[in-house]
Amino acid sequence: MISLADLQRRIDAGDLSPHAAIAQSLEAIGAQDRTIGAFVCRAEHVHAASAGPLCGIAVGIKDIMDTVDFPTEMGSPIYRGFRPRGDAAVVMMLKQAGASIIGKTTTTAFASVDPTPTLNPRNHGHTPGGSSSGSAAAVAAGMIPLALGTQTGGSVIRPASFCGVAAIKPSYRLLPTVGVKCYSWTLDTVGLFAAGVDDVARGLAAMTGRPELLLPPSIPTPRIGVVTQDFAGRPEAAGGEALRIATKAAERAGASVRALALPEIIAEAWQAHSVIQEFEAHQALAWEYRENYEAMAPLLRARLDESRGLTPAAYDEAMGVASRARHALAKVFEEVDVLLTLSAPGAAPQGLGSTGDARYNRLWTLMGVPCVNVPAHIADGGLPVGVQVIARYGADAAALTAARFVEGALMRQ
Amino acid sequence: MISLADLQRRIDAGDLSPHAAIAQSLEAIGAQDRTIGAFVCRAEHVHAASAGPLCGIAVGIKDIMDTVDFPTEMGSPIYRGFRPRGDAAVVMMLKQAGASIIGKTTTTAFASVDPTPTLNPRNHGHTPGGSSSGSAAAVAAGMIPLALGTQTGGSVIRPASFCGVAAIKPSYRLLPTVGVKCYSWTLDTVGLFAAGVDDVARGLAAMTGRPELLLPPSIPTPRIGVVTQDFAGRPEAAGGEALRIATKAAERAGASVRALALPEIIAEAWQAHSVIQEFEAHQALAWEYRENYEAMAPLLRARLDESRGLTPAAYDEAMGVASRARHALAKVFEEVDVLLTLSAPGAAPQGLGSTGDARYNRLWTLMGVPCVNVPAHIADGGLPVGVQVIARYGADAAALTAARFVEGALMRQ
Repeated sequence: MISLADLQRRIDAGDLSPHAAIAQSLEAIGAQDRTIGAFVCRAEHVHAASAGPLCGIAVGIKDIMDTVDFPTEMGSPIYRGFRPRGDAAVVMMLKQAGASIIGKTTTTAFASVDPTPTLNPRNHGHTPGGSSSGSAAAVAAGMIPLALGTQTGGSVIRPASFCGVAAIKPSYRLLPTVGVKCYSWTLDTVGLFAAGVDDVARGLAAMTGRPELLLPPSIPTPRIGVVTQDFAGRPEAAGGEALRIATKAAERAGASVRALALPEIIAEAWQAHSVIQEFEAHQALAWEYRENYEAMAPLLRARLDESRGLTPAAYDEAMGVASRARHALAKVFEEVDVLLTLSAPGAAPQGLGSTGDARYNRLWTLMGVPCVNVPAHIADGGLPVGVQVIARYGADAAALTAARFVEGALMRQ
Repeated sequence: MISLADLQRRIDAGDLSPHAAIAQSLEAIGAQDRTIGAFVCRAEHVHAASAGPLCGIAVGIKDIMDTVDFPTEMGSPIYRGFRPRGDAAVVMMLKQAGASIIGKTTTTAFASVDPTPTLNPRNHGHTPGGSSSGSAAAVAAGMIPLALGTQTGGSVIRPASFCGVAAIKPSYRLLPTVGVKCYSWTLDTVGLFAAGVDDVARGLAAMTGRPELLLPPSIPTPRIGVVTQDFAGRPEAAGGEALRIATKAAERAGASVRALALPEIIAEAWQAHSVIQEFEAHQALAWEYRENYEAMAPLLRARLDESRGLTPAAYDEAMGVASRARHALAKVFEEVDVLLTLSAPGAAPQGLGSTGDARYNRLWTLMGVPCVNVPAHIADGGLPVGVQVIARYGADAAALTAARFVEGALMRQ
């Protein structure tokens, strides 16, 4: 993989020109993307900025985010050839930081669950996960050092786990969703994929102009609460193994680690997620669903068909549960700095029939708390499995720092 | 003005066809809009639905909301001729309820403060207010029974006050902003304009599928707290007079009315509003401001120039104040059902140089609470002045019902 931190150091030292850094990505894409299929479209000639913390950094943008320089097709024929008038807010943040937008990455239709043809770079017989399929795969394949995705259920953390890359789903609205196709305004969250935790932190700090998100020179030892999310069912063997390995590594590295039971309202919130997601999707995708029914991707359409009967009362009840659960979760963080839990039930499923299961992700999206994926285990078939490090709402720096601690502990094993 | 409730009754009774109801609006627009200038563009032939609670209701849509049937130009040459691929969520809600979209109404550029050429139908020498200038004016002139606008500072309640129409800015995200041009995601709120409170309630109930928003057959007598928002400065004579008249009328009608002082954190939140609004606008309008600087409307551009130095730390601090103020405001509503306060400092300013002052609106937008404008007074020059009735977050039905009480009390004077 291409390390963003490494590129920054070499560019800062004058050992690599921003132009050469971009050229390296263009070459890697040329060599690999015919097989992997991570890009929907890409630039032939890319301008490298001469300044900014991300100059020389080639970035892939999930194709539900508006771009003036590329069509924005939402993974759906309904948007074939669509040209937005402006760039999404996060695309402008990247440009202002000096990054070069190198292309648009594949997305399931409207960031839902219908698989794209993208292959998992770790094992071509498996899905890279979704909905941010192309962004996770492009970073994992070493084509680009940074990519943007979005998560409404588990669309950032899950593909990162399946592809063996670092990723952050930041606190709700730390990154704006302006110009990003909406599925659920209460849930949709823009996230970043990169080779490692330091790379992700550098990307997020540069985009937001928040240097406090950069990792500190010395990583403090966190108090970690391990949660198994039993309300979401049991993991597969590989998922459980990843969590055991990460827990042991953190303990060995000196962290205070203990198992935590979450309050009952948290399990209710896990249930409430899908009510909120689908109720809002019926409004957010009303034009697509009602005026373009035949052209809708089949799994998404079936999901919307099934949830047509959701009432405003059910939605209001679910939003109330979510609000109470957020307060309860804030109290949990009085006892620990971060939570450590499963990123996915197991390794990437075989074939391209499914993008996998978001059941260990959706609660945290609804809670709006920052989640960082750290690769923890390699299962059969060379397939990576990650764990996620989760901090309280707004404590993105704490999530990144603790994730770096876990990443370092796993490397020293 | 055209009463939505009256149209509904006549259509239900078979005394008026939906087609004839729409034709009435087309004719009124043809007769008046050359003078008033409320519409950016409008349909030549309008289809009337045969069913749905809003069948036969012609609706004007503020031109920052995406429509497939009309260009969406945001009040700015930067979006000249722009055709979105789909309809905004609120436009689809109207269509699903049977309404007919009759045209797009004028908006200040990106719903900010640069005036449109629209005249105030009550006195052509005055502004109709903004940013939802055309929506307020089109309803006030009797061209259409219902129009959509948005409020980030005071862009629904203020023009409603200046034009003498009813309007609601509902609770934050009761109506989705998907497909509505963003200025500030924490503040932007879609609202409705109609002739009276009952008309507004019917529109909102039909759009949301929430019959509980319809007025009850018998209007209960509310406990009212009168607030003068001293932190926002003193009103003009006409503004103060409107509040006095409404207060007296409510008292005479039997309401429990008392003056309320708001907690100190509320005044801080009033200050915090502009920090949040402009910090987010720099992200939401980054493409427009940075890539189209010369084409930006001058007052908006100057506002963005001035606020360039806003830091993430200042924004985080302002968001923290807003959160504490929302909790404090919720406590205020333990003592009263609704608040009654100024909708604007006074009557509509003369000329078209300014859309007026949002200083009595912005706090409530930031609090996310439902606000209903009720016309209360006619000042010199035949210019209306309104008051706003405000309920706790989520209590839109209570806000509408109490506003209807105040409206009825004012009519009986």
